[in-house]
Amino acid sequence: MTYQEKLSAIRAKMIAAGIDAYIIPSSDPHMSEYVPDRYKCIHFTSGFTGSAGTLVITQDFAGLWADFRYFEQANQQLSGSGYELVKLKVQYTPEYIDWLDGQLPAGSVVAFDFQLMSMVLGEEIKGALSVKDIAIQDQDFVTDIWENRPALPGDLAVLLPEEDCGQDFKSKLADLRKALQLAKADVHVISSLDDLAWLFNIRGNDVRYNPVVLCYALITDEEVRLYLNEEKLSSDDLNLLAQRGVVVKNYQSIAADLDELTDCTILLDGKRTCYQFFTRLSPSIRIIKETNPVVFLKSIKNEIEIQHTRAAMVSDGVALTRFFKWLEENIGKIEITELSASQKVKEFRELGKTFAGISFASIAGYGPHAALPHYCPDEESNLELLPKGLFLLDSGGHYFYGTTDITRTVPLGETTEEEKLDYTLVLSAMIFGSAAKFPKGTKGYQIDGIVRQQLWQRGINYGHGTGHGVGYYLNVHEGPQNIGPSNAAVAIDPGMITSIEPGIYRPGKHGVRIENLVLTVPAATTYFGEFLQFETVTLAYIDTSIVIAEWLLPEQISWLNAYNQVVYEQLKPELSEEEAVWLKEKCRAI
Amino acid sequence: MTYQEKLSAIRAKMIAAGIDAYIIPSSDPHMSEYVPDRYKCIHFTSGFTGSAGTLVITQDFAGLWADFRYFEQANQQLSGSGYELVKLKVQYTPEYIDWLDGQLPAGSVVAFDFQLMSMVLGEEIKGALSVKDIAIQDQDFVTDIWENRPALPGDLAVLLPEEDCGQDFKSKLADLRKALQLAKADVHVISSLDDLAWLFNIRGNDVRYNPVVLCYALITDEEVRLYLNEEKLSSDDLNLLAQRGVVVKNYQSIAADLDELTDCTILLDGKRTCYQFFTRLSPSIRIIKETNPVVFLKSIKNEIEIQHTRAAMVSDGVALTRFFKWLEENIGKIEITELSASQKVKEFRELGKTFAGISFASIAGYGPHAALPHYCPDEESNLELLPKGLFLLDSGGHYFYGTTDITRTVPLGETTEEEKLDYTLVLSAMIFGSAAKFPKGTKGYQIDGIVRQQLWQRGINYGHGTGHGVGYYLNVHEGPQNIGPSNAAVAIDPGMITSIEPGIYRPGKHGVRIENLVLTVPAATTYFGEFLQFETVTLAYIDTSIVIAEWLLPEQISWLNAYNQVVYEQLKPELSEEEAVWLKEKCRAI
Repeated sequence: MTYQEKLSAIRAKMIAAGIDAYIIPSSDPHMSEYVPDRYKCIHFTSGFTGSAGTLVITQDFAGLWADFRYFEQANQQLSGSGYELVKLKVQYTPEYIDWLDGQLPAGSVVAFDFQLMSMVLGEEIKGALSVKDIAIQDQDFVTDIWENRPALPGDLAVLLPEEDCGQDFKSKLADLRKALQLAKADVHVISSLDDLAWLFNIRGNDVRYNPVVLCYALITDEEVRLYLNEEKLSSDDLNLLAQRGVVVKNYQSIAADLDELTDCTILLDGKRTCYQFFTRLSPSIRIIKETNPVVFLKSIKNEIEIQHTRAAMVSDGVALTRFFKWLEENIGKIEITELSASQKVKEFRELGKTFAGISFASIAGYGPHAALPHYCPDEESNLELLPKGLFLLDSGGHYFYGTTDITRTVPLGETTEEEKLDYTLVLSAMIFGSAAKFPKGTKGYQIDGIVRQQLWQRGINYGHGTGHGVGYYLNVHEGPQNIGPSNAAVAIDPGMITSIEPGIYRPGKHGVRIENLVLTVPAATTYFGEFLQFETVTLAYIDTSIVIAEWLLPEQISWLNAYNQVVYEQLKPELSEEEAVWLKEKCRAI
Repeated sequence: MTYQEKLSAIRAKMIAAGIDAYIIPSSDPHMSEYVPDRYKCIHFTSGFTGSAGTLVITQDFAGLWADFRYFEQANQQLSGSGYELVKLKVQYTPEYIDWLDGQLPAGSVVAFDFQLMSMVLGEEIKGALSVKDIAIQDQDFVTDIWENRPALPGDLAVLLPEEDCGQDFKSKLADLRKALQLAKADVHVISSLDDLAWLFNIRGNDVRYNPVVLCYALITDEEVRLYLNEEKLSSDDLNLLAQRGVVVKNYQSIAADLDELTDCTILLDGKRTCYQFFTRLSPSIRIIKETNPVVFLKSIKNEIEIQHTRAAMVSDGVALTRFFKWLEENIGKIEITELSASQKVKEFRELGKTFAGISFASIAGYGPHAALPHYCPDEESNLELLPKGLFLLDSGGHYFYGTTDITRTVPLGETTEEEKLDYTLVLSAMIFGSAAKFPKGTKGYQIDGIVRQQLWQRGINYGHGTGHGVGYYLNVHEGPQNIGPSNAAVAIDPGMITSIEPGIYRPGKHGVRIENLVLTVPAATTYFGEFLQFETVTLAYIDTSIVIAEWLLPEQISWLNAYNQVVYEQLKPELSEEEAVWLKEKCRAI
């Protein structure tokens, strides 16, 4: 079936069911950022492969609402599909709701698969359209037309050794139950896969790059039900779960269990629970809409997690050192492309004994490609790296145990004055954030101002967040904290691991981003209260050859030299003598 | 009646009405920050004169929930009243709700005057207590026991000349109606007095320091009703209102009009509307809970408002110049106290031809008193100013037209190293904020980080916001923007006037705060978008005699010298030759 034919098929189903508009979101029932193949409905329906977007179909119009990151890609991929690109004005907002409200007459019916929309968004759509007497309906037309739709992933999952998690399941459960009691909830349903992986100390392979397993949990003060297909676990692991008091039930059976609930108070996370769960609850149930307590518990890394993460950083730093040495020694001599470089850095990571897979698709951008903050090379776009200009590499790995995410921008030869200046400014912003001290309770948005200010003074800005939380052998993007302009009133607390990654992007020319992961640690307790600071945990040298030193403050240069010195000392024991000599030179103080 | 007797009387009324707990908030039906005498219920009931707090009374306990600003004062004033101070952990939070929830058994009844609680808070109390089956009830026991309770203020109000408002009522109304249409509201009720004063171009004298008049408005697409007692306006002004299509109705009659509304969509501001209005609406009405559109419209000052504000700043700067000259020339020679200094600066302001009253009670703190950020001297606390140490003066005036708010800290003689350092750090923070450039859309919380960062690096912080909006011949505290740590996602837009006022407070020793008002103006449009900056509109020299120059960056010293130069040039034409010579010396570049 062509995309046009699929569109016609959906429109026919809409007419048959009396539906005036049909929405296809880019999510799965767990509200994941990345989804299993089964849930790539937008790709199947329209050909668009971007990971964020929404299709809206009426009899007169079919459109993809996507943000600026995907404008070029969508224009290409949607050509001839019957879908038009509708450019989002504000990222992550459901602007199609206003469009539907404007297009549809009163009495219309809008449908979507209630499993693929979050509670928050489902309620927003319903609330906004109900003013005009437009109804919503649960419909899954995609399954109907998707022959050989991929099954749910059947990969095995494993329980992690609890000593490597730093906190066993029982203790995590006790913390969660305390939080539920505080929130006055009798029942809690968790759908978000990383929260579940953390709570049960379980990992899987159901979503690319995210070591999670498809499951749900229902937790009360007496009971823990884990909805997970039994065949995904070894009998040993099933026994362990049983010993821990966990009742394993079929993945799909959560729906029936929800139907049976009555007269209780349930805590549901509006952003991390599908609208369908919400709509099937009995009216006798009181719903507390709050962030899953696990989101907060998980974000504070324990001593073991920190210790293992430090070890992962050494492995990762060794791999990057080897990669950049190889790159420097071979550039201009053998053919190296964005794709082959990505492959090479993966190979160097694979040499690490504890390597468990890459944590996201590498962003390897040479020259003008580095100016696309979310660029991923493919066969068609793949550029050859030449011995001049800047190469940006944003990559990361999963380790037993720990997850990394690092960006370095390096010169491959001669660079322009503007490239050097931009590099120095980004470095200045990164150091300003990394060296910041701040009182306990400071929010990510305050630190965002501190980091960006270095660029703002010169009329420069970047269109992405300054930083995100990172999981422990889990998702590379993890909440609740972030460093960014949005009003997420989450404090950057001790024990959190967060990225700091400012950038400057000049389309058609070059791009610079430098990213480290930082751990929040105590700084000092003064008369004015408890102050925190960041300890940088990423261990890979920062190139100094294109730094314009007079653009940095003396304390920033000290920070840079001290950081590179730590990198050298931490990595040296794992390097060959030749590698160590090379790295020592790279880490020389300026 | 003693406070004990009043407490007993309230408890007797509670028993008679079957009420288990009674809450007395510190607000009026307009949710004002400062309230008319009639609404000083907490002062009447308990003797506490602070402007923020909540009384909660049960048969076993009576307490005042107040924040750290009032701990000392409350302890003194509540002594022997029968009320205990309950210290708020987090400012501005209704922590008494949790306390009630813990204390009261299921089936209890909690009462308060629904007129004196905001919609948001009323709903929060109801929601939180309903879980435990605790009901809420509308009861006004204070009026019952308050003999000779002050009447509503009867002061006259006036319509401002519309040419001095920069936008006439009809045009403001058209803007508001546009906003209501966008929000899909048929009806809008405004209770907040400064929003009403701005919309109707009316000013009054009903609340101390705030030139507002007690009224409400109900606005539809066809009709404008202003609930305002007719005797408060001249017949000319009443005629003008009639010409403008405004129907003036009795202040109290809004309640009955609300009762009559059915089948409409009403926009109500949950923070700026009393809970009683909310509870009396027919179930057939759809309520949109959003910030009053006027809050946003009012915050963007028009050209005339800016022009008049600049003139007010000259008057204010002249008054402060004369005051600080007088202070310098008389300190150690005649007796000067905190109170007499406050009086003196008021007298200098009164010399200004356009002066219309002070905009808040002056904070005049000498030595250790300056370490209390919200200190106001009274007969008992009044300190004599001696020729040493620091004097902090935070004061402001209303003018025809414009409102000012300025803090200066000056040395009265010898100062300690710590005083000089703290002064220089606060100045550094103030300059960092004042000189900041930022992209359009930047929120106050990002700028908060930029300002505080100067202090945070040294383990210093201050327990108040960095800045607030300021009205145009209106309230000195005006929303929606603020520069502070809270998650108010309001952009600091062009045309807004906001304060920047960092401080350092060392209890028992000294305090420093430096505050200017800044206007947001365009900076530049670059490849990366539209950038904004601040233009400082306050015009009063900043003392440089105790600046430790090596603690400032070269560009900060340039900013300081340029600012003092502007102050001198702007004020000189209004000063006597002797005053000008004195000011020139104060403004000399360092």
